[in-house]
Amino acid sequence: MAEAAQTLDGWYSLHDFRSVNWTAWKKLSEEERQAAIHEFLGLVEKWNKTQTDGQGSHAIYSITGQKADFMLMLLRPTMEELNEIENEFNKTALAEYTIPMYSYVSVVELSNYLPSDEDPYENPHVRARLYPTLPQAKYVCFYPMDKRRQGDDNWYMLPMEERRNLMRSHGMIGRQYAGKVKQIITGSVGFDDYEWGVTLFADDVLQFKKLVYEMRFDEVSARYGEFGSFFVGNILAEDRIEQFLHV
Amino acid sequence: MAEAAQTLDGWYSLHDFRSVNWTAWKKLSEEERQAAIHEFLGLVEKWNKTQTDGQGSHAIYSITGQKADFMLMLLRPTMEELNEIENEFNKTALAEYTIPMYSYVSVVELSNYLPSDEDPYENPHVRARLYPTLPQAKYVCFYPMDKRRQGDDNWYMLPMEERRNLMRSHGMIGRQYAGKVKQIITGSVGFDDYEWGVTLFADDVLQFKKLVYEMRFDEVSARYGEFGSFFVGNILAEDRIEQFLHV
Amino acid sequence: MAEAAQTLDGWYSLHDFRSVNWTAWKKLSEEERQAAIHEFLGLVEKWNKTQTDGQGSHAIYSITGQKADFMLMLLRPTMEELNEIENEFNKTALAEYTIPMYSYVSVVELSNYLPSDEDPYENPHVRARLYPTLPQAKYVCFYPMDKRRQGDDNWYMLPMEERRNLMRSHGMIGRQYAGKVKQIITGSVGFDDYEWGVTLFADDVLQFKKLVYEMRFDEVSARYGEFGSFFVGNILAEDRIEQFLHV
Amino acid sequence: MAEAAQTLDGWYSLHDFRSVNWTAWKKLSEEERQAAIHEFLGLVEKWNKTQTDGQGSHAIYSITGQKADFMLMLLRPTMEELNEIENEFNKTALAEYTIPMYSYVSVVELSNYLPSDEDPYENPHVRARLYPTLPQAKYVCFYPMDKRRQGDDNWYMLPMEERRNLMRSHGMIGRQYAGKVKQIITGSVGFDDYEWGVTLFADDVLQFKKLVYEMRFDEVSARYGEFGSFFVGNILAEDRIEQFLHV
Amino acid sequence: MAEAAQTLDGWYSLHDFRSVNWTAWKKLSEEERQAAIHEFLGLVEKWNKTQTDGQGSHAIYSITGQKADFMLMLLRPTMEELNEIENEFNKTALAEYTIPMYSYVSVVELSNYLPSDEDPYENPHVRARLYPTLPQAKYVCFYPMDKRRQGDDNWYMLPMEERRNLMRSHGMIGRQYAGKVKQIITGSVGFDDYEWGVTLFADDVLQFKKLVYEMRFDEVSARYGEFGSFFVGNILAEDRIEQFLHV
Repeated sequence: MAEAAQTLDGWYSLHDFRSVNWTAWKKLSEEERQAAIHEFLGLVEKWNKTQTDGQGSHAIYSITGQKADFMLMLLRPTMEELNEIENEFNKTALAEYTIPMYSYVSVVELSNYLPSDEDPYENPHVRARLYPTLPQAKYVCFYPMDKRRQGDDNWYMLPMEERRNLMRSHGMIGRQYAGKVKQIITGSVGFDDYEWGVTLFADDVLQFKKLVYEMRFDEVSARYGEFGSFFVGNILAEDRIEQFLHV
Repeated sequence: MAEAAQTLDGWYSLHDFRSVNWTAWKKLSEEERQAAIHEFLGLVEKWNKTQTDGQGSHAIYSITGQKADFMLMLLRPTMEELNEIENEFNKTALAEYTIPMYSYVSVVELSNYLPSDEDPYENPHVRARLYPTLPQAKYVCFYPMDKRRQGDDNWYMLPMEERRNLMRSHGMIGRQYAGKVKQIITGSVGFDDYEWGVTLFADDVLQFKKLVYEMRFDEVSARYGEFGSFFVGNILAEDRIEQFLHV
Repeated sequence: MAEAAQTLDGWYSLHDFRSVNWTAWKKLSEEERQAAIHEFLGLVEKWNKTQTDGQGSHAIYSITGQKADFMLMLLRPTMEELNEIENEFNKTALAEYTIPMYSYVSVVELSNYLPSDEDPYENPHVRARLYPTLPQAKYVCFYPMDKRRQGDDNWYMLPMEERRNLMRSHGMIGRQYAGKVKQIITGSVGFDDYEWGVTLFADDVLQFKKLVYEMRFDEVSARYGEFGSFFVGNILAEDRIEQFLHV
Repeated sequence: MAEAAQTLDGWYSLHDFRSVNWTAWKKLSEEERQAAIHEFLGLVEKWNKTQTDGQGSHAIYSITGQKADFMLMLLRPTMEELNEIENEFNKTALAEYTIPMYSYVSVVELSNYLPSDEDPYENPHVRARLYPTLPQAKYVCFYPMDKRRQGDDNWYMLPMEERRNLMRSHGMIGRQYAGKVKQIITGSVGFDDYEWGVTLFADDVLQFKKLVYEMRFDEVSARYGEFGSFFVGNILAEDRIEQFLHV
Repeated sequence: MAEAAQTLDGWYSLHDFRSVNWTAWKKLSEEERQAAIHEFLGLVEKWNKTQTDGQGSHAIYSITGQKADFMLMLLRPTMEELNEIENEFNKTALAEYTIPMYSYVSVVELSNYLPSDEDPYENPHVRARLYPTLPQAKYVCFYPMDKRRQGDDNWYMLPMEERRNLMRSHGMIGRQYAGKVKQIITGSVGFDDYEWGVTLFADDVLQFKKLVYEMRFDEVSARYGEFGSFFVGNILAEDRIEQFLHV
């Protein structure tokens, strides 16, 4: 049996993709729509406070194409909080005018690379990555992925040493995009249908394509990567939400 | 032909995943909602009695993400009872405001490891596992799975001895999580689309990820495991159901 | 080119799986529901007469889990009759409150094992199997299946002799369940998406699991079987239909 | 690079599978239904005239099982005409009471087997097959298919000579069914998701099963065939349409 | 690790496939429909102006078969503009009567074949292809595709030199269709589920079939191509939109 990689786990994460039922939304009176927007912005205000308090983080992006109209990404210390936020949102007036399109449940994950005599959960650099404040980047890209287990291309049958070497060279590519693309890896084994979620943030949307394409030629992706759906979108700043929903 | 493993079979099991149609639910009057909740709690009361009488067991969990809002897991001595409970629930007022998302039909299953001169169905330790009272753990994880039959990775073509050795080392991993994760295996060959359902219970949700991830490096999963969708959720205690449904 | 197996073909078969739209059904008045049930029972009465006349057979089972609420299985001498029954049912009041979930079109099929100088269609034992009266067993199990054509596991490239030997040993397993499980094989090449439908009847539902699981270790299933969805259910006797639909 | 087969291409083809929304259809008054049927029969009348004029052909079949209630198959000289007919039908009253289930866009295709000094499009035998009048056979069978490109079973990597030999022996099987089954092959590379559509017509529905099953043992199908959904149905003659839609 | 191909990237692209909800559309008054068409044509007018200003391009095609009724293809300098157009369209009256069927997000992509001492983005020939004005061809064909990563057929594990040679011979086929088929390749790695979108324009629809079929025998497609759904359609000129929507 191959040795399992050790992981560090931070905040729990919910990606919640929704489309707007514009037809029904337009049937509301302007007052009703304003009330619904106001209620939703109150929720965001609460999330902002949680973020300021260092008890979580969130991001809101509009999504290009028919897969969704917007995405909420939420990070929280417990699975219960994710479930509560989801239910709280589902009970809002705005939610009545949204259609669930896709969601992803996972937890911020790092590989443990610190010497074993140190508690990584006390290390401030590690903590900053396990409990991150999501950046206000102009663009987001999300996709779930698996490591392949197929015939001769079976990641989980490789010895730890080989996996480590492959991941190291894989990480090199990512590092070339430092400053251009911020990457948050969330683990979802036991939580959702793929093994990881990858969320990328950038101010130049083309960097997503360059990064993912370059990585695809790396053996880790070329032989062992299985990818789910890709979602791409533009930041939906709080002060643009009203305009986004204006009809 | 490879020799088939012998199984012991206990209570029949139905996992029933539902989402709430919040829009329609909110359109009811407070009285109507109270009546629907009351009716549903009456059903749960009946299930509690069955459980107290040792004639079955059940669990209710809210599910994180869009796959479902809650899951009912029901164990009963016969397939008819599962069908009756399902139909009884479907006829409630609450059910009118739920959307079927996924279900799974199976039967509690153990491998027979007792000496052949003993009737395992009389052994109290075996009986406790075949007819279990579901724990009130904080978290649940459910996923269905198959053993792979693909090219050189064909579980069902392996000799019994090899399968037994592989399963033994696989079981070792599970045992390391004793006290942290309670696992109930249900067999579904002939009953549903996968061959087994795995239901995990824990008070620390991260243990699901650690267990499933560690097992994935074991040959049984790495080469022979095919996994369906993963569902994760938080316990929905009876006294929280009203709050869960409060709008 | 491998030699094609010779088949004997009997009555045409339609498996029709439906869910009940309970919400809409409950909105009817008691009189309207009674009228709809009465109309449906009149249809069943007609099917009973056809069965008594030896011109076909049918079975009605409730299905466990969300895949369907009930299944109609209909055998008739011609494809037209299946289509007519389907359309006749679709025009009933009850059908307005059902949701199509899955269906399967096939024809009762036997392998021709008789000496070539005899007309098998005149043999009474063969006729009894080609034109069977469906049993009133307590449980039903249905699944469609293919023989695999994948890389080295290609059933259709095997020589007839090898296929015959494999099927013979496969049939042995089935024979061990004689008296416990009645099996009706229907061929669907050219009629539906899989190559065969398998319908099992038993008075002990666990025998489905035992039979299908044991067969899975047999090379025919282990290497060459591809399985669709499995449906399991309980008999819905005519005198229980009213109670089943009572709300 | 393997040499591409040369094809002759005739009329464009649309297979349009629809289910009837019986519940909504029944809500109409008898007059409204009569008007809708009358309007649809007027459309069919127009298609009949086109067929008489040798400018196209069409067929209408009811489909057995839940995949569809009926199929329209339309042949026309241009892709625009197919689009126009589709839109014209979509705007009828009857179409409001149908649900799109599946469609297929292709073009009648023949392999070019004539000497290169002859223009096949002038040959009357070829023309009769490229611009066929669809038969009024009792039964229809439709399925789309691909030639496999998978590991060692890659049709498109075979040399032309080998493909030709394989197809020749494949064609022999078809020829044994001459007089029993009429086969129309339509090519859909670049037009729809599979590479070909196969439409079979017969007066004995069992011949579809015999033909397709026998072919499955032929190497072309056994190693290289990938099949989509199969649809089977009974002719819906014009004078039976009213009865078919009578509720 | 194989060297990644260098790409040049131009305008961002959205393919938006919609069906018309004819039943609801017909329920509107003639005035309401005229207003909705007028509003939509106003949007098209705006797009025309953008195109005239060289700030983007667009095309509108009706689609044959049930996959969609029409397709909007939009090219713009930024991802935000695509999102804005999409939202603007979604808020129109016409959009209320359309059903989203499929969409594709990508960016016009060229392989960089210029000497490294020249800035390709300044080259007028390159610019014309990165920022193209979509042709008013009679027919369109769209399909997404991947390069295969499967067992021995793994494009991303091939050395750059081999990929270059394969692509060169592949390109030769395309060049034979110069003047007959105009091809626009858009890259979607990191943006959508496949790696590329292929949009073909022609005045003879049969050329799509000939081109795609001939290419399928080329090793790049035969061994390494994985194809998504194919959509084919006829140009929907502005002055035909009203007729297209006339009921």
